[in-house]
Amino acid sequence: MNESINLLLNHRSIRQFEDRPLSKEQIEMIVSCAQSASTSSFIQAYSIIGVTDKEKKKKLAKIAGEQSYVAENGHFFVFCADLYRHEIIGEMENKRVIPSIESTEKFMVTLIDTALAAQNAAIAAESMGLGICYIGGLRYDLEAVCDLLHIPSRVLPLFGLAVGYPAKMTEKKPRLPINHIYHENEYRSNREENEQQLQVYNEIISDYYIERTQGKRKDTWTSQMAGMLEKQSRMYMNDFVQKSGLNRK
Amino acid sequence: MNESINLLLNHRSIRQFEDRPLSKEQIEMIVSCAQSASTSSFIQAYSIIGVTDKEKKKKLAKIAGEQSYVAENGHFFVFCADLYRHEIIGEMENKRVIPSIESTEKFMVTLIDTALAAQNAAIAAESMGLGICYIGGLRYDLEAVCDLLHIPSRVLPLFGLAVGYPAKMTEKKPRLPINHIYHENEYRSNREENEQQLQVYNEIISDYYIERTQGKRKDTWTSQMAGMLEKQSRMYMNDFVQKSGLNRK
Repeated sequence: MNESINLLLNHRSIRQFEDRPLSKEQIEMIVSCAQSASTSSFIQAYSIIGVTDKEKKKKLAKIAGEQSYVAENGHFFVFCADLYRHEIIGEMENKRVIPSIESTEKFMVTLIDTALAAQNAAIAAESMGLGICYIGGLRYDLEAVCDLLHIPSRVLPLFGLAVGYPAKMTEKKPRLPINHIYHENEYRSNREENEQQLQVYNEIISDYYIERTQGKRKDTWTSQMAGMLEKQSRMYMNDFVQKSGLNRK
Repeated sequence: MNESINLLLNHRSIRQFEDRPLSKEQIEMIVSCAQSASTSSFIQAYSIIGVTDKEKKKKLAKIAGEQSYVAENGHFFVFCADLYRHEIIGEMENKRVIPSIESTEKFMVTLIDTALAAQNAAIAAESMGLGICYIGGLRYDLEAVCDLLHIPSRVLPLFGLAVGYPAKMTEKKPRLPINHIYHENEYRSNREENEQQLQVYNEIISDYYIERTQGKRKDTWTSQMAGMLEKQSRMYMNDFVQKSGLNRK
């Protein structure tokens, strides 16, 4: 097993950081690594906002549902899907690009581009001995995030990435068994087979919680997921994204 | 600079592979690394289909716009956003999860989850000395991809990942300058500043092409992008995604 694979397999989210900022060199290296990821047709459809202003970080922590590690970390990045500069390009080149920019296809492109870049940033940070945590909680109120960070239309903040020196390690939760995630030549959609696989995984997850909490907690994965999905969360998103000028048709 | 950062910075897409299949162990390690990526609220909302059937690979190559390296590689993965198993979970747990599953918010979650996993897979492969190329071209005809791979509703193939032993190296194109991608505390949306930055980058890209083609080619980035975006490509996507049971509201 090589060093990079070891790093990937040992990922865990860190939610408590030392009070020690990243250096300019570290930040630039993380961003350079992000930019080295593949990008669809070289579109480079994302931007990254580094937030160092303490008041802004506190406000973002509040938006994210009072997550202290959004404010307290070594550096906080906000990853944004971005087709704003492509709108400018359309005007510069006098080409009609808005229908493309507003399409669901390009919405998917910009989301995927941004996520690939972010994952490179995460791995770069971890390879330096730093810890990371993705902050999807920014999506509780994207309008507030956009106001706070002066984000224009055609740009959509997707998530934050808190980075810093780990103050407390966490455990790695067992993922779905590989035969559940990985298919060969065709998707195995048989419902009974899927339910059986989920029962197997439920036991793995229950055992994990029982062991970690000395028997106090024994949720299954399916109960966690059903509970989470039953709550209709962030249902404003469809309207908000369209108002931002993306995913319109 | 550590080994992993060196790997990230040296990424380039490979479009010509040796005729040498990946081993089962390599494939499983790549998938395990994919699964080690962060996942939003532990939702694990993706599946990966490995395609080894030669006829299916040929058909996928055709769908992707006659890209030979979709058929000829060491292994071909199709990464799918997947909320199908979460629909099953809703039934198992007797919870009303469909409004969540059909929301734009969860569409974004599943796209981001899938892309984070895919980028881990890409890096794992590259760390083994393999080359990779993302294949967004599958999105030319997702209905055909779904038919070929028996993909059910609530599952959306996003892109392929061709992996294999590189037969021909490619060059790395210079990315947008860091000050164009990276902002501090607020997004710099000033149009004039953006246009100036784009002109600077245009010169970088022109110089790159001129040098690489002995002066035969000298496109700018803005002309490439405007040309690409002027073509309204894959405009069926909005309807198709909604028909698949995602991004509906």
